[in-house]
Amino acid sequence: MTAPVKALLFDVFGTLVDWRQGIARDAEKWLSPLGHKADWKSFADAWRGEYQAGMEEVRSGRMPFSKLDVIHRRNLDRILPGFNIKGVAENTLAGLNLAWHRLDAWPDVTAALIRLKKKYLLAPVSNGNISLMVDLARKNGFPWDAILGAEVAGDYKPKPIVYLKSCEAFDLPPAECMMIAAHSADLAAAAACGLRTGHIARPDEAGYGKGESAPRIKVDLAGSSLLDLAEKLGA
Amino acid sequence: MTAPVKALLFDVFGTLVDWRQGIARDAEKWLSPLGHKADWKSFADAWRGEYQAGMEEVRSGRMPFSKLDVIHRRNLDRILPGFNIKGVAENTLAGLNLAWHRLDAWPDVTAALIRLKKKYLLAPVSNGNISLMVDLARKNGFPWDAILGAEVAGDYKPKPIVYLKSCEAFDLPPAECMMIAAHSADLAAAAACGLRTGHIARPDEAGYGKGESAPRIKVDLAGSSLLDLAEKLGA
Repeated sequence: MTAPVKALLFDVFGTLVDWRQGIARDAEKWLSPLGHKADWKSFADAWRGEYQAGMEEVRSGRMPFSKLDVIHRRNLDRILPGFNIKGVAENTLAGLNLAWHRLDAWPDVTAALIRLKKKYLLAPVSNGNISLMVDLARKNGFPWDAILGAEVAGDYKPKPIVYLKSCEAFDLPPAECMMIAAHSADLAAAAACGLRTGHIARPDEAGYGKGESAPRIKVDLAGSSLLDLAEKLGA
Repeated sequence: MTAPVKALLFDVFGTLVDWRQGIARDAEKWLSPLGHKADWKSFADAWRGEYQAGMEEVRSGRMPFSKLDVIHRRNLDRILPGFNIKGVAENTLAGLNLAWHRLDAWPDVTAALIRLKKKYLLAPVSNGNISLMVDLARKNGFPWDAILGAEVAGDYKPKPIVYLKSCEAFDLPPAECMMIAAHSADLAAAAACGLRTGHIARPDEAGYGKGESAPRIKVDLAGSSLLDLAEKLGA
């Protein structure tokens, strides 16, 4: 007999919110009035493309922990030359950097979280910083019990400490926590720490057909949306 | 001109929740069926009386950071002999220790927080651990944006890092954050870090007339209740 799941821990970028359309929209909104032209979806892909390498600086110990906002800002500098974008004022770049705080939830998410909250403790376990998670929650109505994840743990997923510190914050053994993500690598790392796993299909997360339409590893549950997963979790 | 306040950070024990009546009630509920007799309000006072000394072990560096639940559990062992209570089973003591997770809010608190949330970011900045704050929020309907405080900072108030890490989590300078407490010492420590301060009178927190009916230091705002303070904060 397995222990009942008491807390659900959520990946956020791609799993709960649509980073690609949100970043493309905001980049166009902030940069095209200045005369810059780009394929803004490619711009979003390029920015997101620097994500893992930026966090790896921290995970490897080469850089002390910095909030994801800081890493996003540095990554923005790295991609601008490739789009031939130069001379943008610092306060414009700082404002654009907060595009990650303004992303929209996928349409199934908020209603599902509200249902799930009646039965489970809920927290994001994202690499995004606390203020970013707070802004996304305010914008989209996410009913979190607590904001957990990288900033609380002081390191980035998929390092085990991020998953383990999150379970510990709820006073729960990993077996009573389920990590929910649209990314098999995140779930594999959580499973290695003893957490249960729930996969959500986001086939178009990174462009048409470029996301995961099904888990690539064995998971405890898999759903076509968070509402589908909520149903399967009895909420 | 002073910067506008954007976030309100709250002390919890005594300021938002009534520890004395809640602990007395739970101690009686858990221990009197086992034949133990005590003045349960004195029992609550004794348990709370060990609070600062327990945290000082961590603040001084003599002990690594431990959750307040761990400190409360150890303090419970320290006070039992004084009440001539012996031989209580470990699981009973563990259950009683969670009395701190089951405290009731003062009657003005939840309605005031709901009003304040429309205008301000809200977080507890308590010495209580995350799971304790989550349980109090669930029980009383506290609408937190995030759970900040000792466990996130890895140290206990009134150490500056607890206040400063909380402002930083919201990406705000201390001058845009207001610490709200019924205890002047907490507010003095927050003010020394650059935060604004709001005092709430809880004259009977520790027994009739034994709490603060007014601030003992200069504060930015003072209210007779959190609803009164909300009014003064324009919420």
